[in-house]
This record gives sequence, C-alpha cells and structure tokens, in this order.
Amino acid sequence: MSYATEKLREEKVFKDPVHRYVHVRDRVIWDLIGTKEFQRLRRIKQLGTTYLTFHGAEHSRFAHSLGVYEIVHRIVDDVFKGRTGWDESDRLLSLCAALLHDLGHGPFSHAFEKVFQLDHEQFTQAIILGDTEVNQVLSMVDKDFPTKVAEVIAKTSDKKLVVSLISSQIDADRMDYLLRDAYYTGVSYGHFDIERIMRVMRPTEEQVVFKKSGMHAVEDYIMSRYQMYWQVYFHPVSRSAEVILTKILQRAKVLYENSYEFKHEPTHFLSFFQGKPTLEDYLKLDEAVVLYYFQVWQEEGDAILKDLCYRFLNRHLFKYIEFDPASQYKMFMELIPLFKKAGIDPDYYLVLDSSSDLPYDFYRPGEEGERLPIQLIMPNNDFRELSRESEIVEAISGKRRTDHKLYYPADLLRDESTNQATKRQIKQLLGVAHKY
Amino acid sequence: MSYATEKLREEKVFKDPVHRYVHVRDRVIWDLIGTKEFQRLRRIKQLGTTYLTFHGAEHSRFAHSLGVYEIVHRIVDDVFKGRTGWDESDRLLSLCAALLHDLGHGPFSHAFEKVFQLDHEQFTQAIILGDTEVNQVLSMVDKDFPTKVAEVIAKTSDKKLVVSLISSQIDADRMDYLLRDAYYTGVSYGHFDIERIMRVMRPTEEQVVFKKSGMHAVEDYIMSRYQMYWQVYFHPVSRSAEVILTKILQRAKVLYENSYEFKHEPTHFLSFFQGKPTLEDYLKLDEAVVLYYFQVWQEEGDAILKDLCYRFLNRHLFKYIEFDPASQYKMFMELIPLFKKAGIDPDYYLVLDSSSDLPYDFYRPGEEGERLPIQLIMPNNDFRELSRESEIVEAISGKRRTDHKLYYPADLLRDESTNQATKRQIKQLLGVAHKY
Amino acid sequence: MSYATEKLREEKVFKDPVHRYVHVRDRVIWDLIGTKEFQRLRRIKQLGTTYLTFHGAEHSRFAHSLGVYEIVHRIVDDVFKGRTGWDESDRLLSLCAALLHDLGHGPFSHAFEKVFQLDHEQFTQAIILGDTEVNQVLSMVDKDFPTKVAEVIAKTSDKKLVVSLISSQIDADRMDYLLRDAYYTGVSYGHFDIERIMRVMRPTEEQVVFKKSGMHAVEDYIMSRYQMYWQVYFHPVSRSAEVILTKILQRAKVLYENSYEFKHEPTHFLSFFQGKPTLEDYLKLDEAVVLYYFQVWQEEGDAILKDLCYRFLNRHLFKYIEFDPASQYKMFMELIPLFKKAGIDPDYYLVLDSSSDLPYDFYRPGEEGERLPIQLIMPNNDFRELSRESEIVEAISGKRRTDHKLYYPADLLRDESTNQATKRQIKQLLGVAHKY
Amino acid sequence: MSYATEKLREEKVFKDPVHRYVHVRDRVIWDLIGTKEFQRLRRIKQLGTTYLTFHGAEHSRFAHSLGVYEIVHRIVDDVFKGRTGWDESDRLLSLCAALLHDLGHGPFSHAFEKVFQLDHEQFTQAIILGDTEVNQVLSMVDKDFPTKVAEVIAKTSDKKLVVSLISSQIDADRMDYLLRDAYYTGVSYGHFDIERIMRVMRPTEEQVVFKKSGMHAVEDYIMSRYQMYWQVYFHPVSRSAEVILTKILQRAKVLYENSYEFKHEPTHFLSFFQGKPTLEDYLKLDEAVVLYYFQVWQEEGDAILKDLCYRFLNRHLFKYIEFDPASQYKMFMELIPLFKKAGIDPDYYLVLDSSSDLPYDFYRPGEEGERLPIQLIMPNNDFRELSRESEIVEAISGKRRTDHKLYYPADLLRDESTNQATKRQIKQLLGVAHKY
Repeated sequence: MSYATEKLREEKVFKDPVHRYVHVRDRVIWDLIGTKEFQRLRRIKQLGTTYLTFHGAEHSRFAHSLGVYEIVHRIVDDVFKGRTGWDESDRLLSLCAALLHDLGHGPFSHAFEKVFQLDHEQFTQAIILGDTEVNQVLSMVDKDFPTKVAEVIAKTSDKKLVVSLISSQIDADRMDYLLRDAYYTGVSYGHFDIERIMRVMRPTEEQVVFKKSGMHAVEDYIMSRYQMYWQVYFHPVSRSAEVILTKILQRAKVLYENSYEFKHEPTHFLSFFQGKPTLEDYLKLDEAVVLYYFQVWQEEGDAILKDLCYRFLNRHLFKYIEFDPASQYKMFMELIPLFKKAGIDPDYYLVLDSSSDLPYDFYRPGEEGERLPIQLIMPNNDFRELSRESEIVEAISGKRRTDHKLYYPADLLRDESTNQATKRQIKQLLGVAHKY
Repeated sequence: MSYATEKLREEKVFKDPVHRYVHVRDRVIWDLIGTKEFQRLRRIKQLGTTYLTFHGAEHSRFAHSLGVYEIVHRIVDDVFKGRTGWDESDRLLSLCAALLHDLGHGPFSHAFEKVFQLDHEQFTQAIILGDTEVNQVLSMVDKDFPTKVAEVIAKTSDKKLVVSLISSQIDADRMDYLLRDAYYTGVSYGHFDIERIMRVMRPTEEQVVFKKSGMHAVEDYIMSRYQMYWQVYFHPVSRSAEVILTKILQRAKVLYENSYEFKHEPTHFLSFFQGKPTLEDYLKLDEAVVLYYFQVWQEEGDAILKDLCYRFLNRHLFKYIEFDPASQYKMFMELIPLFKKAGIDPDYYLVLDSSSDLPYDFYRPGEEGERLPIQLIMPNNDFRELSRESEIVEAISGKRRTDHKLYYPADLLRDESTNQATKRQIKQLLGVAHKY
Repeated sequence: MSYATEKLREEKVFKDPVHRYVHVRDRVIWDLIGTKEFQRLRRIKQLGTTYLTFHGAEHSRFAHSLGVYEIVHRIVDDVFKGRTGWDESDRLLSLCAALLHDLGHGPFSHAFEKVFQLDHEQFTQAIILGDTEVNQVLSMVDKDFPTKVAEVIAKTSDKKLVVSLISSQIDADRMDYLLRDAYYTGVSYGHFDIERIMRVMRPTEEQVVFKKSGMHAVEDYIMSRYQMYWQVYFHPVSRSAEVILTKILQRAKVLYENSYEFKHEPTHFLSFFQGKPTLEDYLKLDEAVVLYYFQVWQEEGDAILKDLCYRFLNRHLFKYIEFDPASQYKMFMELIPLFKKAGIDPDYYLVLDSSSDLPYDFYRPGEEGERLPIQLIMPNNDFRELSRESEIVEAISGKRRTDHKLYYPADLLRDESTNQATKRQIKQLLGVAHKY
Repeated sequence: MSYATEKLREEKVFKDPVHRYVHVRDRVIWDLIGTKEFQRLRRIKQLGTTYLTFHGAEHSRFAHSLGVYEIVHRIVDDVFKGRTGWDESDRLLSLCAALLHDLGHGPFSHAFEKVFQLDHEQFTQAIILGDTEVNQVLSMVDKDFPTKVAEVIAKTSDKKLVVSLISSQIDADRMDYLLRDAYYTGVSYGHFDIERIMRVMRPTEEQVVFKKSGMHAVEDYIMSRYQMYWQVYFHPVSRSAEVILTKILQRAKVLYENSYEFKHEPTHFLSFFQGKPTLEDYLKLDEAVVLYYFQVWQEEGDAILKDLCYRFLNRHLFKYIEFDPASQYKMFMELIPLFKKAGIDPDYYLVLDSSSDLPYDFYRPGEEGERLPIQLIMPNNDFRELSRESEIVEAISGKRRTDHKLYYPADLLRDESTNQATKRQIKQLLGVAHKY
C-alpha cells in the first residue's frame, strides 16, 4: 500500500462543537495535522480582535481548518463518491487543500498585512513548497504533490472542481467559518442547513453545482453570510480594536525607522520592520508573541506606543461616529490641525475606517473581480445561475454596501484639563459635544 | 444617588453563547469589568491545556467570570427578590463576589501553583485588597467593601447565604463552568436545566436550598458534573499536556537554581524562580507571556528544556499506561534506573499522575474536608439532605474515585537506534512491547 | 383584591420546547386556559395537513396560543413595564388577547372556510362574546372586558399599541409560529433572535416600534418568514393533501345537496352542509371528529368520497406539475374533457392550486390591503420605516410572489388497463409521458 | 435485480427534528412506509396522555418508527458494514424489524390493554403475518420473510444480534424514544450522545457490544433513561389522565355488559367489549375514533361515563396524594365506604396507581425477567458487564424503585353543598383538609 492510500488502524476523531466530530482515517491527513506548521494555527485566533467585542470568539484557525477539511471529506466521501463528474483520484488533493488552505495566516492577519505589506496567501504557498514539515509529508505522497496542493489553494490549478470546493461563493471554507463564528460568538445569525446543501451538491468539470431542490438552503446561506458580515465581522467595536492594533504596528515601525531605542529589543519584529521577513521569522510570530510585545511595550518610553498598547490590552477602545465621505471630508480635514493643536497626534488618534461587502455577485465575465456564480441544476438538467431563479438573491445581487466610520479617543477629549477650547471645538465638529 | 446604587443610562449586554446575554445595569459592575485586572482574564484560558485535547476549549476565564456574575444576577434579581430570607442589601456584594471570584487565577494555574507553590486564592485576595484598579472601584462603594467581597470569596464571611451562592456543592461557579466547558468542548455531557434549578432556589440564613420539586434537575446537575470530570477534566491526554507543562516549569526552575545561563533572560519568571513573586509580577504573567517563553526556550542549549517546550507547543505528548500503585510500584522503581541507562532522564520523562474526585458528599460535621450538603425543602417545609431523598445521588455519595496513569515518551522508546536492549526492557515492563 | 389583579399562590409553569417555560401568575389567565373552549385547541393541529409532509409537525394550536401569550407576557412585564408610552392598565387586555387570538380556529381551517364559507375570526368573536366558559371568565374581570378583548383581536380596538402586539407585520403571533413550526418540523430556517427583538421593542401610542440597533435581528425575522412560507407553508406536497381534503368536503356537501343516503349519518356535518353551523356545532367539530368521519366514509358507496378519504388517510396524494396560467390555460381546458373521457372526474381530480405571499410591505396609505409598516427608532429619536434603512428588506419589499401548480392522480393515469389512449394523451399534455 | 435489493432512483429523505434526516434508499422500506397499516401510526400518539401534562408531546408513533429505522440504518450501514461479526444478509431484516417493531400499538395502548386484556405485541405479529398491505410487501422479498421479521420483533428469532439491535437494555427503540420524547416535551433530560454510542457499537454473534472507550456515553444514556422515567413517563399528572382514561373504558364496558342503551351505538368498540376484536376491528381503532366517542359520550345519560369523558377532554383531572401501601392501606379501606356515602363511586373516583422501574439490570441467568446485560469490550478484547466497570451504573443496578399514588376528584370534595360531614371526613383522612 502506498503512503497516499494508507489508512490508520483505527479512525481518529476530534470532538468538534460545529460538526460534532471530525473524522480522520487517512495517514497523510493525520501526519499533516501533527506538523508544527499546522499546530501553530492553534495560536492564532480565527477572528483576530473580535474577541474584544464578542467574548466567546476565542476559537483558533486550527479548529476552522479541521472543520473545512471535515466538510470536504463529507462532500467527497458521502456525496460525490461514485457519481459521474467526480474523479476519485482528486480525493486526497481535495482533503489536503481543504486542511491547509489557511496555513499562511499569521496573528491578526489583516493589520499585519496592511502595515508590513505581506500577503498570507504567499506564505501559504511558501510553507507548502518550502523546507517545512508540511512539505515533507506532502512530498511523501508524490514529489509533485506539494505543487498540486499549492495550486489548488492559489486557484491556479486546472482542477476547477476541486478549486471550487475550497474557494468560490459557496465553498467549504465559508460554510465552516459562518457556522463556527456563529457558534462561538453565540449569535443566532449564521445558521443554515449545511447538511442539506452538501446533499444537493453535484460535481461537474467546471465547478460544484447545486440541485434546484436545495435552492432555499442556498438562499439561507447567502442571507446568513450577509448578516454575519454586518453583525459580526464589520462590528464597529471590533473595527475599533483593529484600528488600534494597526496603529500600534505602524507606530513601532515608525519608531524603528527613526532609530528609536527600544528598552526591549523587538527581535521578532525586526525583519518585519525591514520589510523582508523570512519564512522562519514569519512562522515564529504567533499571537502569544505579539501580545507579549504589546505587554512589554506598555513600558516603553514612547508615549504613543505605550498608550496604544495599554488601550489594546485593557480594551480602552476608540469611539466612532458615522462618516459620510462625500459631505464630511472637509470636516475631517479641519479636524487634523485641531487634533495637533490639542496635543493629540491625528496620525494615530483620528482614523477613518471603511468596510465593504458584496453579498453575492452574478457572473460578469471579463470584469474585474469576476466571481464564479452559483449554478443550479434544474429538474430538466439545465444549469441556471442562482440570481435568475431566486428573487431574494436577485434582489441583493451585485449590490455593494459600504460603511464608513471615523474613530477617535473620546476619553482624551473628555478630559478638559488641557486645551479646553480646542477640544470643545473638536467635539462640536464631531457632533458629540452634548455627550461629554 | 450613591455609587453603590448608580445605574447605567442604558443596560449593557454581552452576547454570550451559554446564557444568550449577560446583562449589566449597575455602574459598579461595569467599572469592574473595565479594570485591567479583570481584562487580564481574557488572556487566561478557562481550561488550561485542555485545548490540546478538545480543540474547541479555547474560552477564557473572562467569559466564565461574566457567566458566574450573570447566574447570580438572575438568582438574586429574578428569584430571591422580595422573598423572605433574602436581604436586598446583600445584592451588590453577591454580584461583585461572583464577578471577581477567579480574579487571582494565573495562566495554567495548576502547574504554576504546584511548581512555584503559589495559591491563586491568595492572589485573588491580594488583587481585591491591594493597590489595583479593582480595589479602587470597590472602595468607591464603601471603604470596607473590598474586605467584604474578599471575605465572601475566601468563605470567611458571616454572610453564609452569599458564600453558598458562589462556593458550595451546587453554586453559580460550578453551574457556569459545567455548561460553558460542555459548550466549548462540544461534548453532550454537561447539560442540565439551569433555569429549572434557579427557579427552585430559596434563600435561607445558612445557605441556598432547593424546592423538592426540582430534585431531578439537581440530580441531573450532579450527574453532569460527574461525567464532565471523567470525560473532560481528567481526560488522560489533557493530563499528558499538563505533565509536560509542569516539567517545563520544573526544569526552568532547576536550571535557574543551578545558575544556568539562559540565552534569553527569563525576566518575567525570575521572581517565581526565587519563590516570591510580587502582585505586580504575578499580574504581568498571562498565557501569552508563558507561551512566548516556551517558544524562545525551544532555542535554549539545555536539551531537556528545549525538548519539553517543543513537545508542548507542537503537541508531541507523552503516552500512558494505566497504573495500579498497589501492584505496580515495584515496576515503577525498576523503570527509573532503566530510563537513566537509556539516557532518558526519569525526573522529566517518567511521570506518575493521579486524578481523584468525589462527585457529591453528604454532611460529615467536623471531618476534614467537610462540605456543606445540598438541602431540599420538602412540601411540608422540612429540610432534607439530598442523598437521603435521591437514590441516585445516595448511590454515588461519598464515594471517591481515583485514577492513576504512568506517562512516558513513546517516541523515544520507539527509536531503537541507541540503547536498544534497555529500551526493549523498558517496553517489556510497561507492557507495550508489542506496540512499537 | 379584585379578580383582575388576583395572583396564583404559586406561579404555574408549562414546559415549552420553544420558550423553555410558559409562566402563569394571573388567576384570569389560569382560568382561561382551563376553559373547555381553550382546551379544545389541543385537538386542532397548528399546521393542519402539513404533518403529512413534515412528520414532526403534529403540534396543536393550544401550544401556539400559550406561546403567543408568553411572548406578550415577556414584552409587557420585562420590556415595557415602567416605560413611557406603556399604560400598565392595558396589561391584562394584552395577555388575554394574546392567549385567545386563535380561539375560533376549527380543524383544518383553510379547507373548511373555503368549502363552507366560514370565517374563523368571526367564531373567535362569537366564542369570546357568546355563552361560553371563556366569556364567563372574562366577564368576571369586568362586564365590558369580553368586548374589549374581542375588539383587540378584531383590530377594531382603539388600543392601537395592543393591537400591534398581536397583529402586525412583526407580532407575537408570527414570532411564535415561525419559531414553533421550525422547531416541530425540524427545519433550520425559521430561527431568529426573538430575545433580541423583544429587547429593542418600544411602546408608542400608535404601535410597537424597534430600536435601530436591533434592525439586523428584525431583518433576520423577515428572511425567516420568507423561507418558512416557501419551504414549509407552501410546500407542494402539503398543498396536495390540502387539495384532497378540500375535495372531500366539497364532495360530501354535493352528495348531501343531492340527497345522497349516507350509510353513516354525518350528524356533526349537517349544519355545515346547510351553511349555518351554530357556535355549539362549530365547537364540537375538532380534528378527531373530522378524521373519524373520513374513516367511516371510506366505507361509503360513493366511489369518489371513498377514494378521496382513503387517499387522505393513507397519504396517497396527488402529484403535480408547475403551471403557468398565461401559457398553459388552454392545455388545462383541453384536459377537462380528456379526464371525463378517461373516467376520472376533473372536478375532484384535476385541481389548480396557487400560493402567494408578500414577505414585507411598506406603507401604502389608502391602498387596499394596507399594512402597518415596521418602524425603527433612530439614535436621534426619529422614526424611519424599515425598508428605507435596510437594503435587504427594501429589496424584497412589496414584491408579491405567486406559484401555481396543477394537481392530478398519477396512479390512475399510470394504470393503462382501461382508457389507454386517452390516458396517454393526458400524460402527453401534462408533460409526464416519459415518467409512467 | 431482486425486490430485496432494489434501490429507489433517488434517495428519499424525511426531515426529522431528532436525526435531522431519515434516509430511505431501499424500495422495500419505502413500500412499507406507504402501507395503510404503517400510515395508521400517524394517528396514534407516541406518549398517549402525556400531552395533557407536557403540551409539546403530540408526536406520533409514525415519527418514532421512522427514527428507530434510521438508527438501525446508520448502525448497520455506517458502523457494522464490513466488520467481522456482521452478516450483510441480515441488513434488510434488521431495517424492516426496526421500522415495524411498534406496528401493533393501538391508541392509548396501556389503558386499552389493561381494560380489554389485549397485547399490542400480538397485534404486531398479526399485522405482519396476516392479510395486510405490510404482509404483501414483506412477502415480495421472500415468502418466509414476514415470519423472520415477526420472529425478530417477538425475540424468538435465532438472529440474536439483530434482536439485540431492536430490543435490549440499550437498543435503537429506546435510544430513539428517549431523544424524541425529550425533544418534543422540551425537557433537558433525555439527551445523550447517540452518535458516540453508535460509533462504539460492535457486532458479535450474541448481541451488540460496546467499546470501553464509549462507556461514559453509555452511562449517560442510562442516566437519561432514569430521568425520563421519573420526570416524564411517570409524571403524576400524566398518570392522572391515564387513570381517567382507564376508568372511561372500564365504565363503558360495564355499561355494555349491563345492556345499557347507548344513545350513540359504540360500533367501533363492540368487539372490544366482547373481548374478541378482530385484526380489522383493531386497525380501525385509532386515536381520532377514540376521541370521537369520548366526545359523543359526554352526551350519554350515564352520569359517570359522561363526567369522566368531560374530565378527560377538558383536562379536569384527579388530584393525588403520596400513598404508602404498608401504612396506609387501612385508610384506603376506610375511604371506600365514605366515598359511597358521599355519593361518589369509589370504583371510578378513588384510584390507587403505582409506577415502578428498574433503571438497569445486570445479568441474573435463569431468574424471572432476566435481561441481557450491556457488555463492554475492553482494550484487551475481553468482555465485561457494564455494572462491573462503571461505578455509577453499579450503584443503581438492580434497584427497583416504586412509587404509589392515590387519585381522587378534589373538585367534588371541595363542593360541600351536599354531604358536607362525610366529605370533610374524607378530606381529613386524605390529609388535605387544610387545602379546600
């Protein structure tokens, strides 16, 4: 028996609150889970700073990755197996790509990617193809296997069906995170009937398609996704924490660039500040390390770094107002000098933040950001794009919604012991004069 | 209006997966939650190393503390309010004690307490009574208030009813953690009808008692507790992680005592090694800091420290056999020199571990470890101790169950490239010769 | 103490799967539940024939009525109490109207109302105002109280706020049935966060309004409602059972009108056939009685009545095709003579059935079918109609969706032992020739 | 392809709240579900009169039978398939026996069996072996197949493994009803981890056994069973309804035997009164028919029959006191003449009722009521009886618990307009003098 088809003597199970159990029978999957690069995902929260808003959201990318694996496992072994359109030899490739799709995520990815101009997808590729335990395991299947897995995750693979299982408008990744994030935050949005959706999935050469009889379950998934985005992912308080986190990283980088003398040498950050972290550097940076630095930076001499770290760790967040870029940009420009005058650095304490989502998009061939639409198979075997069949999806299709907020430190403005007049002027402009 | 009775303008709610919402209306409670000592509980997992066995168990002591508060809040405001036996002036005391009861927990408490001879309960006292933000808030209620809260948590208060709400054989603490740990691990044990239990609670001078009509719900709670202990809390794999963690701390301490030169100065640990951490030192030590050190210690020169840290972070745990102290102690004594001979230090790699629990105890006045029994109020208003009324509780009452396991590194024994004969002898003694 | 304010010595609770517990403390409510007119609702299924499609949907109108009461109870006692805009003297009126709002429902209401031209709302009025146990209880509160309750249910009351609690586009009735029907059928649509919605409700003179911060929960409710309609209430198989039921009643009425001699005198139906059931007749007719007749009618001499009853009881339902009135009406007209030629009476065996729903409607003052829209209270205390604030609700607002199906007995057409040619012609027209 | 192995073109699914979906692929199973004898189970409640205590408990034996089928289906197709000890040729036999095991249940079985001395198990045999649609379907598999299925259900089959799947101390029947009854009543007892239990089941020639690693899930099942018995099945209020139901049937029988002239001829009951219902008579008697008669009997001339029917339909139940046969039998004997003197017939209005349960029994070979114990397979492949391994099961093993109650009509005693002195004497004896 080859390594690719080797089975464990006894199936291993992980108790999972979302899927009840995650089942592993393949030796390759078991070995991948045991690698240090995969175990590292235990130390990275799935939802970054969201736990500061929803205290239950402390689950890791490790759990999510197992969940995506389990969904794909059920699809290929319970639904696709034996059906026309499904090539059994793509099974292991699908399972590995599902398990490893988020491998390159670092701690608080969005903020890190923004400040240090990184791309977690490139690190996923690097881990799979580089000198790692994960690469060793995959290479034992076949010397080309790491490349194949990496291509599926990068969506450059010609195995379009497998790609669509992992990344499309309705894929195992999204289905797991919506259910999992709903479970851990405790919100009641985010539930949909995944069992029904899996049951109506059908393999085709180009992508996974869905039997018409399951359309309502798919609609429900899209509505859940819409609700989770606005209720959880773009929650203004989480975004406030994210803003502060970003500003900490930005400040630390600026200090480094200005040859600031850190009391505590930021060893783990140096290559990030320099803009060229190696894979090894990157893999060392988990959330524990980041939070460790934030703690010691509370004792740095730089007042801004110190204050921002204190805010983040002790959840003294910024407040916000709704912001309309069209009508209020002038006001924003006026605030900048006022902040300076009040002794509050606007580069770190006056932050515009925008969130934007497109809940579902139909097919716009050739257009930028083209997305594969969801296809239904009708009783007569024709295909039909979801938004043409579902009125509710049609109604929200292609409509991008954007939300702007302006964040500021209410506590500093409330304190009128210094710069009273300027602070009052600021509060007037922000429209919060009556509050503090 | 005094600070003690001040209400927030709008009730604040925390979305909580276990109780759906945690409601805060009291200014005191809101301010306590905002203190840095309380926020620090976000960085300490409720179940320590259990996440290495149940990957969902990543919830923090912050969430649990809010949950205990919410339960007491519902008991006093929805059930006790207006009843004979309940003194409304104990309300705020009860809420504060509930919220703060675990404040002194550090990261991975059990291992730290064992190796460094600490006591988290003493730190809870120290935080409440010392120079902290928590103390400042409590002192604003009344200058004696911190002491009163501390006494309830220490069980030295003469407010016996309030004490029994927080610590007894069926209290808000246990009820929250059983439900919460079941939710996050995903196990189906651990559920019981808390709403029913709260509804049948009645205040008396000595303790909370329970209407007879709710006896079955109480039975169910005791069975849940029993199951959670043996299925989750004493799970042999979690204990393996705990064993390794303990050995890491022990090794680091030994190295320090032997003036080992750490490549990376263990600043945060020094006062622990020296046996006298200050409150300030203690509060700085959260899980992020501990995991940060474990990561850098992977690069230390000491092979044992390095290996144990690698094992913990990458979940390369020890295996175990069931161990019967009566009949197998001799075998254990024989293994020690064999381990040495095989080049594996038995002080760190051959570990006996025992778990023990008493699911429910009736009243044994004067005996050591005396526990307040659960009292039922019968329809005729008599009190009756639970185990006299419930056959199922009677059956398990006072029966301590103990479980012993012997942990060892199977991977080192499997590798027969060195010390083959000795290792085979060890495996023979352990009864695992056929396995590797 | 007056009867209106009398409390039970101990609160009574009903265990309820949807709301966990239904709590009763008011003597009036307890007495109403004990009346025979209310207990009769135990013998009437909430979802009529739906149990033939979703076998779990066997719950009664009794359970639903308790649920609506409980929701209103929580709103007025936990949310409204003490708020501006809420008049505590409307409390009992609200509770009674909630409990009794469906009192006039008979078995399989829709079919009975259609065939016998009845109106369950008129019977609700008649029970509340007539010579009944319910009327006796209500009259003990005050001699005008029955009328007041009846007016709220009839929506003619000038207590607009109370009316809107029971009947509006988001009321206690709908919230209970969506949650309850989802629970009993087992579908995962239909869940929404009722606790959140209740919490953001605010009383105004004209109607209940909702704080803007709860908008997403309201959106979720509207989506749930949409899904339940199309997935459960308009499920084509349930409609098939409904079609057969209607045809049974129609046939029995026709037979009676044609002086057919029933083997088993249909005593309970006589006044219905004659078009003038008294209140007493109406109250006797529960589902047990109807199903009893259907069973004995299986032994009648009339072949159509006998066959339809057999079909209903043993779930031998009609099949259906999608039907487009615009393009297929001619086909339908051609089928009628062909059915006759094949010996299958088209009056009973060829049935067009349509379902139609308007998921949400904004305000169209003066237009027919005008519905009170859902109003949000914005942070600045302005009101704003939901569809102007929610893009997702705006998208489906005012859009009526209609679905037509043509039902026929596939088994009779499959049997080609007689009228082969005609039956083949019919199947050709129906487009199902290839199936049988 | 033979009928026994014929598959449906598309799998059929039933939405089920307990198992999410019930899946049917076998033509035989689908045809059995469509028979009129099986559809009849829709008109018989799983829990008889319990809906008068737990209003949610309105589910039918139809739903339960599908559930038992689904559990066995998952065990044999997901767990046993391909394992040593499992004979694939027993698959269809297992599925059919599971589906049909309760086929002979009539409405309110216990009361009917008691009064008319019937045995639903004999009717199950009669339906399977007699001239029925079920028999026709089973005979198409093989002419001996009906007998084989009947033998498994009667436990006389030599297929001991198959028998143990359907009837043992932990079988598919019990697992389904515990979960289902918990779901519909809404109680939180009754939940256990069925997925885990199924996963650790192993086939042996003699019976299903359980891997030791699943012991705690099995313990949890036994505790759930214990709780459900005392909390739901033996609930004193349900027993009150059962008492009244039994007395109705008894009264009607006595009247018939005394040639009472019924206003409404009790056609459906005649053969029951005569002690020899045919299979045809039996199958006609569903709950609708019984409730129909109870309604018309409310208008009979006999005061007792009329009153009891009124009580049952409108839930005017008897009250009860705890009764100790040893010390209170004399009191009971004194009550009888007092009831007569007060004009209340003690044969119908003074009723002793006992419930008794043995939560788990170890093996007592040769003893009466011998039950197959639950066997664990230890890691070394030895078998071990559950109560020897589980302390909690050992504690309750073999301990029968019995509960006696005395039921009486409190309302009649409360009314002191007649026989005041005697009624007061009765209330004195019952110990309820202070209440009314």
